[in-house]
Amino acid sequence: MPIIDFWFSIGSTYTYLSVMRIEQVEKQTGVRFVWKPFNVRVVMIEMNNVPFVNKPAKAAYMRRDIERRSQMRGLSPKLPAPYPLAELERANRVAIVGAAEGWCPAYVRASYRRWIEQGLPAGNEPNISQSITEAGADVEDVLARADAEEAVAGLVDATNQAKSLGIFGSPTFVVGKEIFWGDDRLEDAISWKNRQAK
Amino acid sequence: MPIIDFWFSIGSTYTYLSVMRIEQVEKQTGVRFVWKPFNVRVVMIEMNNVPFVNKPAKAAYMRRDIERRSQMRGLSPKLPAPYPLAELERANRVAIVGAAEGWCPAYVRASYRRWIEQGLPAGNEPNISQSITEAGADVEDVLARADAEEAVAGLVDATNQAKSLGIFGSPTFVVGKEIFWGDDRLEDAISWKNRQAK
Repeated sequence: MPIIDFWFSIGSTYTYLSVMRIEQVEKQTGVRFVWKPFNVRVVMIEMNNVPFVNKPAKAAYMRRDIERRSQMRGLSPKLPAPYPLAELERANRVAIVGAAEGWCPAYVRASYRRWIEQGLPAGNEPNISQSITEAGADVEDVLARADAEEAVAGLVDATNQAKSLGIFGSPTFVVGKEIFWGDDRLEDAISWKNRQAK
Repeated sequence: MPIIDFWFSIGSTYTYLSVMRIEQVEKQTGVRFVWKPFNVRVVMIEMNNVPFVNKPAKAAYMRRDIERRSQMRGLSPKLPAPYPLAELERANRVAIVGAAEGWCPAYVRASYRRWIEQGLPAGNEPNISQSITEAGADVEDVLARADAEEAVAGLVDATNQAKSLGIFGSPTFVVGKEIFWGDDRLEDAISWKNRQAK
């Protein structure tokens, strides 16, 4: 089965588009995606890559672009959503815990639905507890582990690994040494993977 | 016949992808594109939108992304191409003259081919004269008019019009009040246009 790494950060608005369709794409293409949470904020600050702050035309466009593409796919975002996320790190540390236990995709989808469709910031209450519950995990246990040293270090390690791959934004799809940035490059990543497989 | 405005600046590397396929897209879809040159550099500087300078990871990705997408379409870019263009303004003033006379698309394609595929900066010799000739216009006459007041004012006017539409990058496709930024949104622009037509 062809496998593609799906690097993402809860906190990236465009990532909503990928999070909400990866499962369907897996069914349609037979490709499996491995969900890899990292801290995109750290990477972007380090690279002085600040695409939307103080750029109102570009920020307005981004919202409209996400809105239009979402509607084409039958999604109902309510934009602008709260941004930036105060608890971006915690939201992604929970995803790190989930990735080790198999409920990461369900948690991330639930978080994005609450954040982008209902206006409840991911990483904060009530979003975080409700999304963990929806993913079938135990809130108290997960939050304790997400705030402990292992998950903190896990997110730092993942972020360093992302940087070493040349990743500078979320979502990024990785096929061998090739990186594909943006939900709009998901199809390119799949073509590349399938080409390799031949 | 459905019409979409195609706003572009010679000098934008990603615009190569659109310039090289617009003609084929017209044949396949029946949509007609009106070529609208403007000065994207002025707009981006004003908006403090500098996507690649001092962002080596993003710049390297941009080149690879253009390379891969070009190859998928049978094009042969040689990247990195000279960047930024010293004579961006002159290159686009010639396009302004061409837009009034019907040879703008042929000139812009010829300029991009020499710039991105052969490493000859657009707007400079020999690219500029060769591309005007290839488009079927008279070099001496065109360059004289491109450097005269009317074309200078024409590019400024076009750039102000672009800004008033909310345009912040090249290429941008405009359908009514909706703007679609990037070669990767060309299909969205066409869908939007066709939806309107129904």
